[in-house]
Amino acid sequence: MSSSDGAHAPGRVAGPAFVLINPQMGENIGAAMRVMANFGLDDLRVFAPRDGWPNERAEAMSAGSPLYASARVTDDLEQALEGCTVLYATTARPRGMVKPVMTAREAMSEARGLIEAGQRPGFLFGAEKSGLPNELVARSRAILTLPVNPQFASLNLSMAVGVLAHEWRAGDPAPEEFKPLEEPADAVQLVRMYEHFEDELERAGFFFPPEKKPLMTQNLRNIFARAGLTEQEVRTFRGAIKALTIGRGKARIARD
Amino acid sequence: MSSSDGAHAPGRVAGPAFVLINPQMGENIGAAMRVMANFGLDDLRVFAPRDGWPNERAEAMSAGSPLYASARVTDDLEQALEGCTVLYATTARPRGMVKPVMTAREAMSEARGLIEAGQRPGFLFGAEKSGLPNELVARSRAILTLPVNPQFASLNLSMAVGVLAHEWRAGDPAPEEFKPLEEPADAVQLVRMYEHFEDELERAGFFFPPEKKPLMTQNLRNIFARAGLTEQEVRTFRGAIKALTIGRGKARIARD
Repeated sequence: MSSSDGAHAPGRVAGPAFVLINPQMGENIGAAMRVMANFGLDDLRVFAPRDGWPNERAEAMSAGSPLYASARVTDDLEQALEGCTVLYATTARPRGMVKPVMTAREAMSEARGLIEAGQRPGFLFGAEKSGLPNELVARSRAILTLPVNPQFASLNLSMAVGVLAHEWRAGDPAPEEFKPLEEPADAVQLVRMYEHFEDELERAGFFFPPEKKPLMTQNLRNIFARAGLTEQEVRTFRGAIKALTIGRGKARIARD
Repeated sequence: MSSSDGAHAPGRVAGPAFVLINPQMGENIGAAMRVMANFGLDDLRVFAPRDGWPNERAEAMSAGSPLYASARVTDDLEQALEGCTVLYATTARPRGMVKPVMTAREAMSEARGLIEAGQRPGFLFGAEKSGLPNELVARSRAILTLPVNPQFASLNLSMAVGVLAHEWRAGDPAPEEFKPLEEPADAVQLVRMYEHFEDELERAGFFFPPEKKPLMTQNLRNIFARAGLTEQEVRTFRGAIKALTIGRGKARIARD
């Protein structure tokens, strides 16, 4: 299997295996390959796809995912499951089997712990129409079911894969490059801005009746305190106040 | 909007609104409608879909989702956002804007709290190629970004909707109807089974050398303790032991 796609950043453990059992639609196989790569998973096995392999529709929907080439596609079930030490059966139907029932979040959290302990969990996904055969549910440690609306429960196969793939990473913090570079304003910069704003409002006759000024001031300061301004935003807003007061002066001159 | 699809079980709060901005592919709109209904969400707004409306591909991919009929499809942006009190901008690219950056899990958790406080959060999804316009990111309370692999970051639009829709329900416990009805075996039933098994193993000469019997017994009991047997399973396993010992007797008679 390829590990050249950057999914394995240093210190990041390799994810679980996903195993599609008898998938029917090439589109779903391809979409599964795409979304697994999106969330940094690279161990896909495809057991006995209905339309054979290679599959043009799968390739198109995989959108260049490295998993189109690296997935293990096989008609041998034991080869598809090779190396998996713990299986999870995703299923939409109760099976009446005595087995723990987990949500995606619970199962992926358990799987992460197992991986850290040196195990290799595999998540099994059944065919679009029929789901997993009972034989494979019986071999699984737990049943994994998604919290779907019982009145509209039929989840697309690649969506189920996508939801599980996201769960693998869902606890990661938001990436650093999204964090803004600007410095947050400190309390002194903020109070100077508040006072500038309030002085101009005072001059404009905004605080009326005067005994309400403390409450009105407090309400205005609340807005900015919640917003969490940067130094640049403080400068911008003070510029806006200045422009309004000068503009007001101009307008008054024009009207007078 | 329709609320006849059972998404609103008694006591369940209505979910957030999802707003697709200029979606290009009817397939993605339909897949979004399907997966929102899967996870019990019913407030979808579609602003200015590229190929107009109605859209046959969207209808086919919606797979009978009630959202195909109930979604608000409009070319008026303010109508698409109507009623939303807090916006979240889903985006794959850093925008250099000063704004909280959240994961899907963090944002949906915050949105749940806002809904309980009477607010109506809206999640904005941009077009497949171009994403959200900066104008809408600027109007949002926070940027929401998914933990994708930077080397393969392009997530299908309907997948992004699906991952967020699942987050709405991801904390729900596994449904009751999946829980097995069988009674778990109690400690006495289990120890009788253990003793039955060990007596037959003793007779068969399994515990050799004899001083290892305590450790071997402990290892065997460990297996069953981990598995968590039901009363029925205890009966089945004791039946299996009986069959093996009788079978062994028979085999021995036949060989002798």
